[in-house]
Amino acid sequence: MKVAICRKENFNAAHRLHNPDWSDEKNRTVFGKCNNPNYHGHNYELIVKVTGQPDAETGFVYDASQLKELIRENITKKFDHKNLNLDTDEFKKLNPTAENIAMVIWHILRSKIDPKLDLKIILYETERNFVEFPAN
Amino acid sequence: MKVAICRKENFNAAHRLHNPDWSDEKNRTVFGKCNNPNYHGHNYELIVKVTGQPDAETGFVYDASQLKELIRENITKKFDHKNLNLDTDEFKKLNPTAENIAMVIWHILRSKIDPKLDLKIILYETERNFVEFPAN
Amino acid sequence: MKVAICRKENFNAAHRLHNPDWSDEKNRTVFGKCNNPNYHGHNYELIVKVTGQPDAETGFVYDASQLKELIRENITKKFDHKNLNLDTDEFKKLNPTAENIAMVIWHILRSKIDPKLDLKIILYETERNFVEFPAN
Amino acid sequence: MKVAICRKENFNAAHRLHNPDWSDEKNRTVFGKCNNPNYHGHNYELIVKVTGQPDAETGFVYDASQLKELIRENITKKFDHKNLNLDTDEFKKLNPTAENIAMVIWHILRSKIDPKLDLKIILYETERNFVEFPAN
Amino acid sequence: MKVAICRKENFNAAHRLHNPDWSDEKNRTVFGKCNNPNYHGHNYELIVKVTGQPDAETGFVYDASQLKELIRENITKKFDHKNLNLDTDEFKKLNPTAENIAMVIWHILRSKIDPKLDLKIILYETERNFVEFPAN
Amino acid sequence: MKVAICRKENFNAAHRLHNPDWSDEKNRTVFGKCNNPNYHGHNYELIVKVTGQPDAETGFVYDASQLKELIRENITKKFDHKNLNLDTDEFKKLNPTAENIAMVIWHILRSKIDPKLDLKIILYETERNFVEFPAN
Repeated sequence: MKVAICRKENFNAAHRLHNPDWSDEKNRTVFGKCNNPNYHGHNYELIVKVTGQPDAETGFVYDASQLKELIRENITKKFDHKNLNLDTDEFKKLNPTAENIAMVIWHILRSKIDPKLDLKIILYETERNFVEFPAN
Repeated sequence: MKVAICRKENFNAAHRLHNPDWSDEKNRTVFGKCNNPNYHGHNYELIVKVTGQPDAETGFVYDASQLKELIRENITKKFDHKNLNLDTDEFKKLNPTAENIAMVIWHILRSKIDPKLDLKIILYETERNFVEFPAN
Repeated sequence: MKVAICRKENFNAAHRLHNPDWSDEKNRTVFGKCNNPNYHGHNYELIVKVTGQPDAETGFVYDASQLKELIRENITKKFDHKNLNLDTDEFKKLNPTAENIAMVIWHILRSKIDPKLDLKIILYETERNFVEFPAN
Repeated sequence: MKVAICRKENFNAAHRLHNPDWSDEKNRTVFGKCNNPNYHGHNYELIVKVTGQPDAETGFVYDASQLKELIRENITKKFDHKNLNLDTDEFKKLNPTAENIAMVIWHILRSKIDPKLDLKIILYETERNFVEFPAN
Repeated sequence: MKVAICRKENFNAAHRLHNPDWSDEKNRTVFGKCNNPNYHGHNYELIVKVTGQPDAETGFVYDASQLKELIRENITKKFDHKNLNLDTDEFKKLNPTAENIAMVIWHILRSKIDPKLDLKIILYETERNFVEFPAN
Repeated sequence: MKVAICRKENFNAAHRLHNPDWSDEKNRTVFGKCNNPNYHGHNYELIVKVTGQPDAETGFVYDASQLKELIRENITKKFDHKNLNLDTDEFKKLNPTAENIAMVIWHILRSKIDPKLDLKIILYETERNFVEFPAN
């Protein structure tokens, strides 16, 4: 049986939902107020969950301080106080829905964490809207 | 790998735990203060979790605004500011425990959501008591 | 300069807003869904704030364990898992709005606490609606 | 002694802190990452607190449903899913710090609420940064 | 399909992360400020999740009041207001990381709960660091 | 009219309530489980509230980033992951009740903040017990 260790971090960003292959009218219809041309923003709450066997000597699956630093170095520094559509390479062509942001974060962190450990991302866009990836 | 999108909504309702096949004394013993004849109440917090593949054009598994409307139309309108035992058909003969309320909500919403998508209900009766259905 | 010590407790109750001097129609118009004849309910969160000088020997303004017991004995026992309109003397003739519940709690506790200490009640009816008494 | 009734609402907006009378360098030094030219954003949590005497017939200082509607009509509709700097008249020339946003909201609502009632605004920019106006 | 019932309880404890097989220097390097010789402490939030079929007569998977008592009798009484390293048998030789505390709690409760029911522990060491056992 | 800006920070510490002028028995009677000789601990949540006039050029009463740094430099560094009774000068002879900790923090920060600005400390020992200093 495995143990999961979770770390919560935050970033504050602007974004706009928009599909460039669609007309402005279709974008407004589908994305509603999230399509506002001048962007809007969120306090994103990010939970990174790492699952595996605790190390016999430390009792840690993953040192929470190191997990904090890994997230800050690779995710927070990139997305915090940024405009996701304009300031990041990841969302230049990818619509920054909560689902897509969670998958992008997963791919960034997956390559930095031992493959023996499982990785899941939970991302709160607001207190009432949140996503999980991967979800089983 | 799938993505889950979750939406949190609320409803405030009165209820009473009671098994009509039992004596009043047995009801009091088993359900304690939750058996109070004149009812008591809760601020129920409901999380609806829908799991599937994000749509390639929108980046959504399920549009959070539509999920909000689906919940409000089918669940909140039915249960909010109601007496679950007296004002709803669902709990006329079914004991309104958190477990049963979660299963009732799941059955109502299951028929409204594409069968390709998985559905899970999380229901907080209080900050300290909550249930999940289905739980794996 | 004084110090305030606050203690949070909870109770779950059913209630109905209704003015017996009004017609049913006026009650429905003014109180809306809160006038539902069969009641609805809430998880009330109660904060009791006591302000004064810390005792030189204990460093306490008021022992938090004693404040917890005072609230449980005088407030929780009376209101928890009850129908405020039917099961309590206080709201037999008084409309159980959050404002009135807070004032009733204040009067009950005021007589139990040393007059040298100031007393304030904060009562959350929901996460989004709450009251304070007295408010300066 | 008066009673206060509080209502919490939310809006999600983009903003940028910037003083046009300063050089870009001074703006960066003073406002740091909050000066990002392409904006960033927040989930603002707004608490509106109205203080006065409860009405003898209703038991309300201010009907919470009406307060909700007042906030949604006058504040949420104006600021939600907007870029405060670009999409609103209020912050075309006023730096949208939390302090200034709270004062702007206070002035908008003050004219809509009976002068016999006191009004206070509490605004959370993040879970860790929040402001009150007026503060005594 | 099964239902899960969850109960949240709390305990406040002191602890120190330390591996007696290591030098003081290695302990300081690996455990950082958590290795402080005079201990530090946390408000632990514990969620116990029990999964199974609801009973046909009660509608309960597990009576939440009985789950509360089970946790208080077996876990809270043992760990609350204690120094985990000095005052408990469980952590005399086992490093009290969140992972290890969750596994210890799971083993204590597992023997008290019907084997037909699944058991999971979620333990918050802080609002930002938490663990799950078992994690699938 | 003034504006208040609040910043929330955290520290995790061990402590023990004890009056050395009393017998062990009296200490146990008055302080109960908080008198445990081997200490227990808490996740303290600290809110620092600074009240004054916003600066005309910045729109800040106090720059929230500078307030964060001020708290971390003067409070968190001193108390986080420490035993308040053994590791700090402030509580060598002063009982570390929440009331006393709040007053100590206020005195430390008062000397670092412009006297034109008002200062208040709110300190959560647990989610249910918290104090304010000064309280009016």
